[in-house]
Amino acid sequence: MQPETVLAPVRAFLPCATPPAWIEWALANPELLLVDHANCEKKAASTALNLMYRYVEQPRLLQKLSRLAREELRHFEQVFALMQKRGMAYPQLSASRYAGELRRQVRGNEPGRLVDTLLVGALIEARSCERFAALIPVLDPELADFYSSLLKSEARHFEDYLGLAAALAPAAEIEERLAALRNCEARLIESVDSEFRFHSGVPAEMFASGVATVRK
Amino acid sequence: MQPETVLAPVRAFLPCATPPAWIEWALANPELLLVDHANCEKKAASTALNLMYRYVEQPRLLQKLSRLAREELRHFEQVFALMQKRGMAYPQLSASRYAGELRRQVRGNEPGRLVDTLLVGALIEARSCERFAALIPVLDPELADFYSSLLKSEARHFEDYLGLAAALAPAAEIEERLAALRNCEARLIESVDSEFRFHSGVPAEMFASGVATVRK
Repeated sequence: MQPETVLAPVRAFLPCATPPAWIEWALANPELLLVDHANCEKKAASTALNLMYRYVEQPRLLQKLSRLAREELRHFEQVFALMQKRGMAYPQLSASRYAGELRRQVRGNEPGRLVDTLLVGALIEARSCERFAALIPVLDPELADFYSSLLKSEARHFEDYLGLAAALAPAAEIEERLAALRNCEARLIESVDSEFRFHSGVPAEMFASGVATVRK
Repeated sequence: MQPETVLAPVRAFLPCATPPAWIEWALANPELLLVDHANCEKKAASTALNLMYRYVEQPRLLQKLSRLAREELRHFEQVFALMQKRGMAYPQLSASRYAGELRRQVRGNEPGRLVDTLLVGALIEARSCERFAALIPVLDPELADFYSSLLKSEARHFEDYLGLAAALAPAAEIEERLAALRNCEARLIESVDSEFRFHSGVPAEMFASGVATVRK
């Protein structure tokens, strides 16, 4: 499958494209990008595992999320190997505001809680996929190749989360919740953020003045 | 490698063998055995993941534990597939006292905390391996085959944890800590426990009277 075939449903699902200012921010922070990417892979695995503890009565969820967690861990190993190859340190980083803010939108009572959590998972995976695609043209060939190889599985994880959610609630409820979550996601992606992270918004200082130009 | 070659270092490492009364308890609770085994695989994966969050400055630990977590998740999928095939439900179970009590022995300050945590990991993996071996002769052929297939990886995980610990502390410290942890482990395995679990002690009622006989 061509990258564009993989990306079309992801882009149709997301409320907005990654702003060029974020791409510039990433290029100014190549090591932070990799470290936070490594953290995102670990976080994706542990989020899936946490759901596997809570929802033991959902066989399809258990099977899908266990495989998804294994794949995220494999990606972690690949990012980490690249970091090692490049002689990078692995500092502790604070988490991005992104996932925390999205999770705050999750309803408190079941089954809404699970449905929303899965929809948030779909949004995070879709955004990761879209960001990889946005970075590929501007990264060094080694990293560009690696991110190309991740595109497909992130797109599959997005479909997995969405499919699990869709099986648990009527289409109208899914649409209504997605509208609210997409709204929140767009704000997190397009507004000024205090720290660069893989899922951060845009920088306040570097670009507010319009001085920086976005690399093509 | 023959099972006995795999098992020799595991048995040499553990403070005691699984009491026959636990085997009998397991045979009286075939579904609980599988459900708690599934939980143990998830727990092993999330314990490894938690260490991967805390100790980002330890490359070897990150690499080993990520692979170990993937393998535990794969085992989870296998146990769960067996449960599904047998038409079993997957109820929520309380955790066994075993891992919690062992973790209470872990020193509070680094680097002792990590060393002890890894040694506890080695003990848990070794005990799992030894219990699989103890169960194989008395289980139905399908389950016996499956548990045989798990033996080797559990033995490898035990060696991994032990190797990671040994790289972080002098041999005398490892031996001293292991003596204390083995002591605790033997107590947990040989004393009366309130609930049957994969790592539980022995039952109070069924066998205290000596009425039950242990199946060969």
